[in-house]
Amino acid sequence: MKRQVPSKEVKEAVLSRLVDRGVTIEDIAEIVYIMQAPYNVGIKKSACMDSVRAVLEKREVQHAILVGTELDRLAEEGMLSEPLQSIVESDEGLFGCDETLALGSVFGYGSIAVTTFGHLDKQKIGVIKRLDTKQGNAIHTFLDDLIASVAASASSRLAHRLRDELEAENERAAKEGRIQKTQDKNN
Amino acid sequence: MKRQVPSKEVKEAVLSRLVDRGVTIEDIAEIVYIMQAPYNVGIKKSACMDSVRAVLEKREVQHAILVGTELDRLAEEGMLSEPLQSIVESDEGLFGCDETLALGSVFGYGSIAVTTFGHLDKQKIGVIKRLDTKQGNAIHTFLDDLIASVAASASSRLAHRLRDELEAENERAAKEGRIQKTQDKNN
Amino acid sequence: MKRQVPSKEVKEAVLSRLVDRGVTIEDIAEIVYIMQAPYNVGIKKSACMDSVRAVLEKREVQHAILVGTELDRLAEEGMLSEPLQSIVESDEGLFGCDETLALGSVFGYGSIAVTTFGHLDKQKIGVIKRLDTKQGNAIHTFLDDLIASVAASASSRLAHRLRDELEAENERAAKEGRIQKTQDKNN
Amino acid sequence: MKRQVPSKEVKEAVLSRLVDRGVTIEDIAEIVYIMQAPYNVGIKKSACMDSVRAVLEKREVQHAILVGTELDRLAEEGMLSEPLQSIVESDEGLFGCDETLALGSVFGYGSIAVTTFGHLDKQKIGVIKRLDTKQGNAIHTFLDDLIASVAASASSRLAHRLRDELEAENERAAKEGRIQKTQDKNN
Repeated sequence: MKRQVPSKEVKEAVLSRLVDRGVTIEDIAEIVYIMQAPYNVGIKKSACMDSVRAVLEKREVQHAILVGTELDRLAEEGMLSEPLQSIVESDEGLFGCDETLALGSVFGYGSIAVTTFGHLDKQKIGVIKRLDTKQGNAIHTFLDDLIASVAASASSRLAHRLRDELEAENERAAKEGRIQKTQDKNN
Repeated sequence: MKRQVPSKEVKEAVLSRLVDRGVTIEDIAEIVYIMQAPYNVGIKKSACMDSVRAVLEKREVQHAILVGTELDRLAEEGMLSEPLQSIVESDEGLFGCDETLALGSVFGYGSIAVTTFGHLDKQKIGVIKRLDTKQGNAIHTFLDDLIASVAASASSRLAHRLRDELEAENERAAKEGRIQKTQDKNN
Repeated sequence: MKRQVPSKEVKEAVLSRLVDRGVTIEDIAEIVYIMQAPYNVGIKKSACMDSVRAVLEKREVQHAILVGTELDRLAEEGMLSEPLQSIVESDEGLFGCDETLALGSVFGYGSIAVTTFGHLDKQKIGVIKRLDTKQGNAIHTFLDDLIASVAASASSRLAHRLRDELEAENERAAKEGRIQKTQDKNN
Repeated sequence: MKRQVPSKEVKEAVLSRLVDRGVTIEDIAEIVYIMQAPYNVGIKKSACMDSVRAVLEKREVQHAILVGTELDRLAEEGMLSEPLQSIVESDEGLFGCDETLALGSVFGYGSIAVTTFGHLDKQKIGVIKRLDTKQGNAIHTFLDDLIASVAASASSRLAHRLRDELEAENERAAKEGRIQKTQDKNN
């Protein structure tokens, strides 16, 4: 008989899986901070942490993390059949399923999230750099893209929230006759 | 040492995997025929077969098929860790990684391919219907979406080709003063 | 000098634009109801209305509606340059920018929203059917896809919410030893 | 009566539109060269030009360019209705329809094209930088993303082709007992 998995169980599995694979919420939040700091002076690390946590609440994100890290783990244990085993093991240059899986949940946060994802995928900032650098038998073909995806989504989510706050502030300012602030493009 | 897998090996693995999982090129071509026949009177089954074969030549498509059928197989053997095992086994309603993976290669064939994919995913025509109907221990959570993806892509590819041929024909007709044909929307 | 448009102004423009183009929130909610009723017995129309309203709060959705309906209006007035004018006017079969623009905001609601969008784009249910049927000089090349997009997103959003409620209910049931309900695939 | 626009007319309109908006095929090829040179020693500029030309043959790409540059032109002439006029004019930070429209045709070239697009959108290399820097009354809100899209697609297309050539070369090498070359990730 088939079992329907409660959302709570899925969420807990995702968080403990990230820990197992060596990634903390702080690691991801650090990337968000690096991406948003140039556009938002005085942005707090705690706001970045909150944004990462909110993204990790999403079913699409959770499922993608479970699938991607499972494939990484199976590749580490040599359990995939050929030629997939070799493709994942070598993080083959033209293999794109890792990006595709990660992109699925990025779209949820707007086209800015998609471009940020592309940027992170190329620049490999923070923990993404560490994951991309092979150490021992560890395989992170899917994980590095998933982390870029979560960071990009959390970054876009934060940019939208900060804009909303800025507008509320500007509205108050307008009433008092103060000059309006604006927010730069490229968030 | 890491091995770079030659494209030929990947392609052969995909074709034999489809056979293993019970899907023939004819099965997929039949869906393409059903989708295109209303818009293209006199369309040939062989043209549908050729279009499916051309789509199966694409690296993105091949990789998605290898990944998706691997996950189905591992789920059949109970090799996935929980809760992913239960989610894939039950083809859980809000699990979307199967569609995401399949969609990645659909985009390559234009937005018409994307809407056709959505249509097939709901209507479950031909072999997709058969795969979606559980038989014994077989798990096709990923495969049904992958087949819908290949059929949608081949269908869109064919619509574009037929339009090109129609234009060439119209150009000749125009020179000879004959009336121009048009092609209907919703291909 | 450049003016930053407040979110409130954007939102109001979207709602009045929909009215101008002949689409009510009820029209869209009706499609959501038709899509969700088979999977959720006893679903209320008011829940569908709320879901449509929530989707219309999203910036990505609002911007897409402003751009798409602007292009429809400009085409009606013959203000687009050729050959775009003819392409939009005739809702040209292989023109896909209308679907692309509409898809951008659909992704935000998961891959289920994408397949529902594809389904609606083919089946043309309710107001989408009416918009797709040319009347006088009205051009709705972009609008019909945008409405399908909002309906698909609202439908997916509702399916996710109902699942959350179902889980909360099941959790209570489990404590009391009652049998668990499940939700069907294909939402 | 509605007119079906021949593909040839669409293509010519796109090429002359790019010239009108100040972008040459060389400009785009230069970006492709910058993106691919690190991974492919000895790559020729002519191969980059050919790849850009091939991407510009695609209907999805052509339609997106016609729509995007039309909106830029209408904004320059102050012909869009408010608040869209202000949003496009100011290239508003959280406006994403420009990226969405451009992304539609990028998907056709694989997930590598998508990440390259994101990278270009952030880094603004070559002509994209020039377009992004406001000069006089020129508005290029859509054009810069479209150029990034064409460059990313041409870049990905080239990477796939070069890989095919490399494999053919390796196959010959293998027969002669020579060492195989590999191609780096991140193309």
